[in-house]
Amino acid sequence: MSNQACSLQAPVRHLFGPGPSPVHPRVYEAMRQPIVGHLDPFFFQVNEEIRGLLNLCFGTSNDFTMVISGTGSAGMETAVVNFIEPGSKVCIFANGYFSDRLTEMATRQRAQVVRLEKPWGEVFTDAEAEQFIAREKPAAVAFVQAETSTGAYQPGHGIACAAHAHGALVIMDCVTSLGGMPVDVDAAGIDIAYSGTQKALGCPPGLAPITVSPLALDWLRQRKTTPASWYLDLKLLLDYYESAHRYHHTAPISMFYALREALEIVKEEGLEARFARHKSNHEAFVAGLASLGLQMHVAPEHRLWTLNTPRVPEGSIDLEIRKRLMAGYSIEIAGGFGPLAGKVLRIGTMGYGSSAENVNLLLKALKSALA
Amino acid sequence: MSNQACSLQAPVRHLFGPGPSPVHPRVYEAMRQPIVGHLDPFFFQVNEEIRGLLNLCFGTSNDFTMVISGTGSAGMETAVVNFIEPGSKVCIFANGYFSDRLTEMATRQRAQVVRLEKPWGEVFTDAEAEQFIAREKPAAVAFVQAETSTGAYQPGHGIACAAHAHGALVIMDCVTSLGGMPVDVDAAGIDIAYSGTQKALGCPPGLAPITVSPLALDWLRQRKTTPASWYLDLKLLLDYYESAHRYHHTAPISMFYALREALEIVKEEGLEARFARHKSNHEAFVAGLASLGLQMHVAPEHRLWTLNTPRVPEGSIDLEIRKRLMAGYSIEIAGGFGPLAGKVLRIGTMGYGSSAENVNLLLKALKSALA
Repeated sequence: MSNQACSLQAPVRHLFGPGPSPVHPRVYEAMRQPIVGHLDPFFFQVNEEIRGLLNLCFGTSNDFTMVISGTGSAGMETAVVNFIEPGSKVCIFANGYFSDRLTEMATRQRAQVVRLEKPWGEVFTDAEAEQFIAREKPAAVAFVQAETSTGAYQPGHGIACAAHAHGALVIMDCVTSLGGMPVDVDAAGIDIAYSGTQKALGCPPGLAPITVSPLALDWLRQRKTTPASWYLDLKLLLDYYESAHRYHHTAPISMFYALREALEIVKEEGLEARFARHKSNHEAFVAGLASLGLQMHVAPEHRLWTLNTPRVPEGSIDLEIRKRLMAGYSIEIAGGFGPLAGKVLRIGTMGYGSSAENVNLLLKALKSALA
Repeated sequence: MSNQACSLQAPVRHLFGPGPSPVHPRVYEAMRQPIVGHLDPFFFQVNEEIRGLLNLCFGTSNDFTMVISGTGSAGMETAVVNFIEPGSKVCIFANGYFSDRLTEMATRQRAQVVRLEKPWGEVFTDAEAEQFIAREKPAAVAFVQAETSTGAYQPGHGIACAAHAHGALVIMDCVTSLGGMPVDVDAAGIDIAYSGTQKALGCPPGLAPITVSPLALDWLRQRKTTPASWYLDLKLLLDYYESAHRYHHTAPISMFYALREALEIVKEEGLEARFARHKSNHEAFVAGLASLGLQMHVAPEHRLWTLNTPRVPEGSIDLEIRKRLMAGYSIEIAGGFGPLAGKVLRIGTMGYGSSAENVNLLLKALKSALA
């Protein structure tokens, strides 16, 4: 392939925000591979490899795992439009921005939405989940495993047990956990889980992995109403990606190449080693933050390994810190928003970006930016 | 940047189907540029450049031109969910597969859909458009300028005049014309036009350009109901891409880089020169097809320059021809479907793929495959 230079010259940033995260050089190379058609056998082969590798990361043996041709938010909308029917009741565990977005999407599907609220950064106990679901008897429940707006990890097992005891499907957002920490779809009993590519998988944004349990697939096959979205209709997408290969849309092939390469890198590293890397770099970073005098917003037992949310120290202004990091080090991190606006920083240690070297760089830069 | 080899090795195909089309080497290079964050000023600068360059291709001075983070089908769904309200009446000019898809999407929005049918490959006269719209008095009309399933070009001026005379918004699909032949959004009076990147723009699939007239934007701002889709909600997308830069989703940055580069190549070539190139290569190809004894399905005055639909000759089987082209030349073309299944071939001469060299290659390969 020609190496003809392009006119676009992008600056190099250290992406330590809540995503997109740094991309592995091999993933960039994969995107430069020549595209094939969306009905080419090679494309379907790549897609099958992706499905198998995603199952590893999701922790599932589901047959129905696929990739939506949109970003993580399209994954969320896919879960909602396919599994939440107009007029049906859905219980949402609301402790951050992405549960608010789930609420908004479910409302647009004309569902009856009931929310259990907690302050941003806290998570729900099994007893709270059981009580909520037993009281409301919904058709579906939805929660966020890895809340990107707060840095909190919500275990799913208790929610899923309660939901199944009352005949509800369980939808889980794992955008910021997939590939960086255990997602445990099967062990937790999750029916529908969706994610993005630009967090702990170390791939550019553009695709949304989703997996669906046999129970949820049965439910979908028996669904009488047609989802409001054609683009995100999983039954049509199944006909395209499965054996019939019936044309639906023109899949974004270069992004599939990128995801296939990112997942191959996950497999080469090994999932357990990858999780251990994320955990140890997260812990080293938190220890370093403590030595800088910063306190974490989330309790130790509920922290994500992928995204850290130290509180903005007394007397500092988050925007100033971020400006200094960008100006001095080309480092991108993010601030809080909603109830956490001005109160926390959101700093990613995920995917290709989770390394001892980056932890040191981040701590050095933060020390200088906080001074 | 490192040149670390990736494990994925894609085969080289000559993409002469109805899209995706061949990608310019500079566009591949652009996709390898380092990503930045979705709120990075550099990203918004790239986005602004894309908007300006797209306006050139659309033939519009609309302020509201943007890119949807999905494929061309997501562009269609964006037009439908934002501009066709539940319960409202929409007139669809139905002469191919993509008007059927428009029908399906509008039906899912619970609109009242009325269709004017013509055989696949024919187009509508101004008088037919006027009569249809005057009789039905719809809130919106939708048609396909460049019908990828048939190879026919539907002029829009007559439809738009009739629609505006009766107070209807005009939605146009220009997926297979944008960048290869005149789209003329402003000259024809189109309110909403959407496209894809993988046809005459010579970019991989993954994004959907869309443009909206001031009239349609006013309508949208006054719309009382909320669109069923959050992901494709143009009012939210405006807040993200325009000055507020309010977070919506994580834009697929590498695809934006690719599109920016593809559009820069369009600008360097010049739009008129690019159109002339498409026209002359199309004409040379059609002349060559005639010398092989193949007849075109679409009347000369209604043919796309980007996509050619010769009839499958008596005694030949389209699938066999396609197999021989792939096996002997790594050439991908497509067959017909729906009412044209087995009756036509669909052969693209578009974007980077529209060249005298490719026309010769195609004719040589077809001659051998038909023998």
